[in-house]
Amino acid sequence: SMLVGLSLPAMADSTVDLVQALVSKGVLTEEEGALLSKGRSNEVEVQKKKESKSWTSRVNLRGYVQVRNTTMLGGDDGINLWSDRSVGDDKSLGDADKNFLIRRARLIIFGDYGDHLSYYIQPDFASTAGTGNNNFAQLRDAYGDVYIDKTRVHRVRVGQSKVPYGFENLQSSSNRLALDRNDALNSAVRDERDLGAFYYYTPTDIQALFEDINKQGLKHSGNYGMFALGLYNGQGANRPEQNDNYHVVSRFTYPWKAESGQIYEAGIQAYRGEYLSSTAAYSRRNAAGALASATPTLGTGTPLSGRNGIEDERVGISFIMYPQPFGIQAEWNWGNTPGLDITKNVIEKKSLNGGYVQAMYKIDNFQFLSTNGTLIPFVKWQYFDGYNKAETNSPENHVNDWELGVEWQLAPEVEIAMVYHRMNRTNLVTGNRVASAANTANNLQPREDYENFKAEALRVQLQYNF
Amino acid sequence: SMLVGLSLPAMADSTVDLVQALVSKGVLTEEEGALLSKGRSNEVEVQKKKESKSWTSRVNLRGYVQVRNTTMLGGDDGINLWSDRSVGDDKSLGDADKNFLIRRARLIIFGDYGDHLSYYIQPDFASTAGTGNNNFAQLRDAYGDVYIDKTRVHRVRVGQSKVPYGFENLQSSSNRLALDRNDALNSAVRDERDLGAFYYYTPTDIQALFEDINKQGLKHSGNYGMFALGLYNGQGANRPEQNDNYHVVSRFTYPWKAESGQIYEAGIQAYRGEYLSSTAAYSRRNAAGALASATPTLGTGTPLSGRNGIEDERVGISFIMYPQPFGIQAEWNWGNTPGLDITKNVIEKKSLNGGYVQAMYKIDNFQFLSTNGTLIPFVKWQYFDGYNKAETNSPENHVNDWELGVEWQLAPEVEIAMVYHRMNRTNLVTGNRVASAANTANNLQPREDYENFKAEALRVQLQYNF
Amino acid sequence: SMLVGLSLPAMADSTVDLVQALVSKGVLTEEEGALLSKGRSNEVEVQKKKESKSWTSRVNLRGYVQVRNTTMLGGDDGINLWSDRSVGDDKSLGDADKNFLIRRARLIIFGDYGDHLSYYIQPDFASTAGTGNNNFAQLRDAYGDVYIDKTRVHRVRVGQSKVPYGFENLQSSSNRLALDRNDALNSAVRDERDLGAFYYYTPTDIQALFEDINKQGLKHSGNYGMFALGLYNGQGANRPEQNDNYHVVSRFTYPWKAESGQIYEAGIQAYRGEYLSSTAAYSRRNAAGALASATPTLGTGTPLSGRNGIEDERVGISFIMYPQPFGIQAEWNWGNTPGLDITKNVIEKKSLNGGYVQAMYKIDNFQFLSTNGTLIPFVKWQYFDGYNKAETNSPENHVNDWELGVEWQLAPEVEIAMVYHRMNRTNLVTGNRVASAANTANNLQPREDYENFKAEALRVQLQYNF
Repeated sequence: SMLVGLSLPAMADSTVDLVQALVSKGVLTEEEGALLSKGRSNEVEVQKKKESKSWTSRVNLRGYVQVRNTTMLGGDDGINLWSDRSVGDDKSLGDADKNFLIRRARLIIFGDYGDHLSYYIQPDFASTAGTGNNNFAQLRDAYGDVYIDKTRVHRVRVGQSKVPYGFENLQSSSNRLALDRNDALNSAVRDERDLGAFYYYTPTDIQALFEDINKQGLKHSGNYGMFALGLYNGQGANRPEQNDNYHVVSRFTYPWKAESGQIYEAGIQAYRGEYLSSTAAYSRRNAAGALASATPTLGTGTPLSGRNGIEDERVGISFIMYPQPFGIQAEWNWGNTPGLDITKNVIEKKSLNGGYVQAMYKIDNFQFLSTNGTLIPFVKWQYFDGYNKAETNSPENHVNDWELGVEWQLAPEVEIAMVYHRMNRTNLVTGNRVASAANTANNLQPREDYENFKAEALRVQLQYNF
Repeated sequence: SMLVGLSLPAMADSTVDLVQALVSKGVLTEEEGALLSKGRSNEVEVQKKKESKSWTSRVNLRGYVQVRNTTMLGGDDGINLWSDRSVGDDKSLGDADKNFLIRRARLIIFGDYGDHLSYYIQPDFASTAGTGNNNFAQLRDAYGDVYIDKTRVHRVRVGQSKVPYGFENLQSSSNRLALDRNDALNSAVRDERDLGAFYYYTPTDIQALFEDINKQGLKHSGNYGMFALGLYNGQGANRPEQNDNYHVVSRFTYPWKAESGQIYEAGIQAYRGEYLSSTAAYSRRNAAGALASATPTLGTGTPLSGRNGIEDERVGISFIMYPQPFGIQAEWNWGNTPGLDITKNVIEKKSLNGGYVQAMYKIDNFQFLSTNGTLIPFVKWQYFDGYNKAETNSPENHVNDWELGVEWQLAPEVEIAMVYHRMNRTNLVTGNRVASAANTANNLQPREDYENFKAEALRVQLQYNF
Repeated sequence: SMLVGLSLPAMADSTVDLVQALVSKGVLTEEEGALLSKGRSNEVEVQKKKESKSWTSRVNLRGYVQVRNTTMLGGDDGINLWSDRSVGDDKSLGDADKNFLIRRARLIIFGDYGDHLSYYIQPDFASTAGTGNNNFAQLRDAYGDVYIDKTRVHRVRVGQSKVPYGFENLQSSSNRLALDRNDALNSAVRDERDLGAFYYYTPTDIQALFEDINKQGLKHSGNYGMFALGLYNGQGANRPEQNDNYHVVSRFTYPWKAESGQIYEAGIQAYRGEYLSSTAAYSRRNAAGALASATPTLGTGTPLSGRNGIEDERVGISFIMYPQPFGIQAEWNWGNTPGLDITKNVIEKKSLNGGYVQAMYKIDNFQFLSTNGTLIPFVKWQYFDGYNKAETNSPENHVNDWELGVEWQLAPEVEIAMVYHRMNRTNLVTGNRVASAANTANNLQPREDYENFKAEALRVQLQYNF
C-alpha cells in the first residue's frame, strides 16, 4: 500500500514521496509520476553538481590557537626552556616572554581535489621573523598527497611535511597532553618537518583502525602509514639545504586491538644523513678559566672535516597503550649526532640516547558547572643524554624532567592544560654574555652558555579550536 | 478553508503547504498528510544539520585593504610621519615610501564555535619583516572570547587583542575618519594591542545600544564592554615581554540615547605598569655642539635604575556625540611614561598630556554619478606634549596638528578619504645621520634626530572592503 | 495538455511542476495553484538571497604549490641560478637549496563584491624573511579593480599588482611552461609587480576572446587590457619607494582569431622612470689583479649623480601564436638601465637588449595508466645582453640558454614539468668571498662575483592546484 511506501520518508525525497502518493491514489498516472519524479531527481542532481563545483567543497579551513602563561615556582633563576619562551624570568637570556605567549596560532587550509590529490597548507602565525619581531606567518606544512589508487593504500607525499620519526613527533600539538615534546626524539628533526618526498603504505584495515583510534579521542599520531620511506633535505623545516645530499628515513608501525577492545601500537623508525650545524659566538671558560667568547669550528683540519656536514643517524622504538581509560606511551632512541665539545670548541660526531614514559587516564563525561567534557590527568618522565643539533652550535643537552599535569577539554572548542614541570636540564639558548663594557652598560651579567639548571614551574595553556 | 491555510505561504514550507492543500481537498488522508509532512520536515532538519556542520558555518572570512598616496604641499622637507611611510620626500629618513603605500591589508578569520567561544584571528599583510622587506603577514589579533553564559554579559578574552584604553584606539582603522590615530592616546599601547587576559562586562541593554550605533554606521569602537579589567605583558603587540611583570588596565564607558534619538557615550580609562624602552644609536648635538652618535641608558646608576622598566601610567577620558548628522569626538589623557632626555642622554620617567577634538557631519544618500553613498566631512585638532615610549629611544613628541578631510563611502565595498594635513610635530624616526665618511659617500647629510618640523600634505586613501 | 507542460522538467521547479499538474488535473483550482506556486517561488527567492548574502559568495579561495628538485648534469660547479635556489651544488654561493625547494606556495583570496569591485589578495608562503629563514607569507598581489561601468570595459586597478610589461611577465607562473621567466623582460620589474594605479581598457569582444583563449587552456596572460596605462613607485614589489617620483608604463596588445580558428596575439609595451639600485660589498679584482671587496657608488661626482636614481626605460614587443596544437611565443626588448661597471666600480646608465623564442605543441587527451591529461613539450631559447637592476649592485647579466622540456597535466589538480636546462649565463648572486682569514676558517674559497658559467641541469617540478 501507499503507506508502506511512505514508511521511510527520511530516506527518500519528500517531493518524490508526494508524487508517488498521488500516483498510488490515481490522481496522477504512472507516466506523469515518472516524469515529475525525473524532474525532481534532475533538480537534485543539478544542486549536487553545483555544490561539488563550489570552492567550499575543495577548500576547508580550520585551526587552533595556544596561549600560555608560566609561573616560576622555584629553583635557579635566569633560566630558559628552549621550547617555550614563556618560561623564565627577567634574568633569562634572549627574548624570553615570561608572561603571556602565543605559542602556536595555526590556520590549516586543506582539502581533497579530484580522486588523486589531498593537500595541506599550514602556516603558523606565531613565528618569529627576527629577534623581537614576533607573530609572523610561516609555513609548517605545505604538501600534497598523490594517491596511486582510490583506496589510498599507496601514496606519495611531496613538499614540506612531518618526517616520519617518532610517535610524539607525528602527533599534532593540538592533541598532545604535555605542553612540549620530549627532547630525546624531538631533537631528531627541527620543527618535526622537512622538505622531501615520502612514500606511505597503509592497508585498508590499518586505515580503519587508525581512524577508529582517532574518533575515540585517544590522541593518535595521525596516519603516517604502516610503512614509510622518505628522502628529505635534512636541515629541518624552513631552512635551506646546505650540503647537496639527502637524509633517508624509514618507519614501521603496527596498531592492534585486543579482544578486550584495548588498542595498542608499536613502532620502529630510523634515519641517517649528514647535518650541517649553524655556529655563532658563545660564552665559555677558556684555558685560563675566564669567560670568553668563542665560535666553534665544524670538525678539524684543513679543509675542516665537518664542512659538508657531520654524521646524523638514529634508531628509535615506540610503544603506545591507548588510554581506555588508562594508557601508557613510551619511546626511546639511540644514535650519533653533530654535537659541540666545549673543551675543544669543535662540533663533531657524538653519541646520544634518551626517551620518555608517559602514563595517562582518560575521564569521559567530566562535568563541571554547565560543562560536560573530558579530563585527562597524566605524568611524564623524560631523559636525554645527547645534543640538540638544530640549536645554534649544536650544544650538549642533558634532560631529566618530570611533568605532572591535566588536560581538560571543556568543549570541542576550548581546552585548558595545567602542568607542574620540574626541570633538570641544560639551558640551550645562546646568550654569549662575556664580561664586556657593552654588556655591563646593558646590565647583562657575564654567563657561561649551555649550563645545567634546576627549576620548577606551573605552566598553563588555553587552547582554542575552530 | 484551505485558502486561509495557504494565506501565509512565505512563512511555511511549500511542500508542506501543498500536502496540506491536498489533505483539505480530501485527496490525501490526514494520516497520509502527516506522514508526508513529517518526511518533509525530517528532510529540512537533515539539511539544516548538514549546513551547521559545514566548516563555513564556523569560519568566516572578511577583510580590507588601504592604499595611500601623499603629496607634500609645503613646509620643511626631509620630514617623516612615523605613522604613515607614504608621507615624506626623497630627503626623508629611513624607508619612507613617499608615493604609493599599502598601509593595511587585513584578512580576518573569525566565527562562533559552540555556545561559549568566539574567535578572531587578524593578520596584517602589510607588515615589515626587516628594513626594506615589506608586506609580510603578521598578527594583529589572535584571541578567543570565552563566554561565561549564553547572554554574553560576562566574557574573558585571552590572547593578543586591543587593550581597552581610548575610544579611538579601539575603533577599527576601517571605520576611522582620520587616516591615523591621535598620538596622545595612541602612544599608550604599541599597535593598540597586547598579549593578555581581559574581562568584559556588557549588560544586554548596553549590548543592544552598541549594536544599534554600529548598524546606523555611526563609527563605533565595537563592544569592549561597559566595564573592562585586564592584565597584559605591556610591551605592545608582537613584542616579547621584557620584565616579568604585568600591566593592568581598566575602562568604564557608558553610552546613552537622548529622547531626540541622539546617542552619546562617555568613558574613563587608566592603566599602569613598567615599560622597557628599546634603545639604539641616534644623532644628537654633544656638549661641544657637534653632531655625534649616542645610545641612551635606561636610567642611571649601577645597576641602571631603569633596567627592568620605567613607570608607565595614564588616565584618559573620552566623550562622543555620534554623528546624527553632526557629531563630536574628544579624548584627553595624562600620565607618566619612559621618555628620552636628550641633554642627559638618559631614558627616565617623564610626564605627558594630550588629546584631540574632532567634529564631523554625516551626509547620507550622497549621490554622485551612479553612486548613492555616504559623505562625512570632518575636522580634527590634536595636541600632545609627551613621549612615544614604543618608538626607538622613547623620544619626546610634540604635536599640534590640524586635519581637514572628507570620507566618501561610494558603496559598502569602496571608500575614498582625502585629508589636508597641517603638521607641526616631532620627527620620531631615528636616522642617526652623523657626519661620517660613510654617510657622505651615501649622500646622507648629517641630521639631528627628533627635531620638530612644520609641513603640509594632501593625503589620499582608497579602501576596499570585502 | 499537462504532459506538454511537463516536458521540460529540468528547466523549471519540480514543486511548481507538480502544482501545475494538479491544477491541470482539476485537483487544485487555478487560484490555489497560483498561491502555492507563489509560495514556492518566494521560498526560492529567500534561499537565493540567503546564499548571496553568505560570505562564501563574496570570498573565494584557491591556490597552488610548486615543489622543485634539481640534478646537476655537468658543467661548472659552484654555480647559482638567481631565479631558482634549487639549482646548484655545495660550492654554490649563499642559501642555495640544491635539493628540494618550495618555489611557490600561493593562496589567493579573491572575489567580486557589489557591481563595481573585484579584489585579489595573493600572499606567497614561500618568501624569505631573512637569510636562512624561509617560507614566510609575503604579498604578491593586493589590489582592487574598480569598474567604471558594469560592462567592465574601463577599470582602474589600485594596489600592488603586475606591471603590464611583457606577455610572459603577466602570465601566471602556474600556467607558464618554462620553470622561470626569461631574464631579458623579467629584469624590467622585480617580481613582475609594483605598487601603483593602472587604467585598463578592454572592449567586450576582446574580453570574450581573452576568455576563450583561457578556457581552451592555451596558457594566456590573463586580461591586462587591450590598452593599459599606469603609474607606479618603480622599485618593485614589496620594496619601499626611494626617490619620490613615479614610473610610467603603457601597453597595447591585440588578439585575433584567423578563419582557421587559430588565435594570434601581438603587443607592444614601454615604460620609463628612475631606479635606485641597492648596493653591497662584492668581490672583484682590483687594479693589482687581486680579489678585494668593494661597494659600488651610484654614479660619480659630489653629490653622486645617481643618488636619486638612474634612467630606467625600455620598449618591448610580443608575438604569440597560441598552441592549437602547435604554438610560438616570442618577445624582445631594448632599453637603458642602471648597471654596474665593475672596472669603474660605479653603477651608471647602461643599454640592454634581449628576449626569447619558445615553440610548443599541445597534446590533448594524453593517456597514461588511468590518467587522461594534457602533454605539452616545448623548447625555449633566451638571450640577454644587459643588467639586472633589481639584484644587489645591478650586475651585468649575459644569458644564452636553451631549455627543452615537457609539462604533463595529469589532472586539473596535479602537473609535472621536467626540463633539461643548458645554462650559459652570469651568476648574479653576490658572494663577496675575498681571501680572508674568516672565509678560510669557514671553508669559503675566494671567488670573483658576477662571473659567467656554463652548466647543465635536469629540473623537475611538481605542481598542486587547489
